[in-house]
Amino acid sequence: MEELAVSTRQRIQVIDITEQVTEARRVDDGCIVLHVPHTTAALALNENESNLKSDMEKFYSSIAKGSWGHNSIDNNAEAHLTSTALNSSITIPVEKGKIILGRWQSILFVELDGPRERKVYIKELKA
Amino acid sequence: MEELAVSTRQRIQVIDITEQVTEARRVDDGCIVLHVPHTTAALALNENESNLKSDMEKFYSSIAKGSWGHNSIDNNAEAHLTSTALNSSITIPVEKGKIILGRWQSILFVELDGPRERKVYIKELKA
Amino acid sequence: MEELAVSTRQRIQVIDITEQVTEARRVDDGCIVLHVPHTTAALALNENESNLKSDMEKFYSSIAKGSWGHNSIDNNAEAHLTSTALNSSITIPVEKGKIILGRWQSILFVELDGPRERKVYIKELKA
Repeated sequence: MEELAVSTRQRIQVIDITEQVTEARRVDDGCIVLHVPHTTAALALNENESNLKSDMEKFYSSIAKGSWGHNSIDNNAEAHLTSTALNSSITIPVEKGKIILGRWQSILFVELDGPRERKVYIKELKA
Repeated sequence: MEELAVSTRQRIQVIDITEQVTEARRVDDGCIVLHVPHTTAALALNENESNLKSDMEKFYSSIAKGSWGHNSIDNNAEAHLTSTALNSSITIPVEKGKIILGRWQSILFVELDGPRERKVYIKELKA
Repeated sequence: MEELAVSTRQRIQVIDITEQVTEARRVDDGCIVLHVPHTTAALALNENESNLKSDMEKFYSSIAKGSWGHNSIDNNAEAHLTSTALNSSITIPVEKGKIILGRWQSILFVELDGPRERKVYIKELKA
């Protein structure tokens, strides 16, 4: 299993990790499973366009607005709730050594309670 | 890896692809990974009931209403944002040649920026 | 494939199934695919903290509020719609016989239309 390090700088931040994931890949035919071992971060497959990344950050800051009991313990209930509406793990096919992404797809790390030092695990499954 | 073609007819449309996926399956024991190589479409496992499909289309058109920067480039930010709240890839178990779906589960393709010609990849993993 | 039974007691309820999943695991190196064969329930990876579980239940009861056509057939459209915004299946890495979860991650079953008797399938994939 490979492990990527991701440093985030903002409370809510979308970071393209496609290149790091591509470099870490070893399986030639199968799938990679990307897994975030955090409860206030997530993964998405979408377009790395600067306006859209800002839109995502704005969108993710709005999904779970509310008055939450968990905030009496740790002021990040919105981040927890939003992460469950996104994905903690994503499985992507690999063919002939190439991760299969569509033309506009990038692998995006979604920080919801930063800034923090984060990890992404990459587990590889053979076909 | 198998590739399915899906033609969509509406801006937002839910289409049952269970039969196409079932016909494409070759693995007898393992999992199929369904992967949409698009950033304004998604997948869901849910019930193919005509009222509910209309409800989903209405729901998905409401999730990300807003004024978005990406719309100055391409007027589909809502489709991108909504797709990240759904799933780009889904992994489903296969046993004895049968895709394991619950009684009410169908495999649904979710178009969020149609009409378009779309693809779904099916990667098979042996147990 | 392993099968877990989950009895739910409330209309909307978050239940920690980490221990059941851990006990069912047999693969030493690979992934487990958790799959819910239901259309009004889901899975999440998040923190098992009592306030946060109540917050999740409140959040999931609010996501899809509306007037839905499916409710003329079966009064649970909100549960169907909410489940598609969460996850029906989750894939988690396993290394040296250990399911890889972050410090705060638990495997959570999300009931959206209970109380019911539910199932979770666990399919294991070798690396």
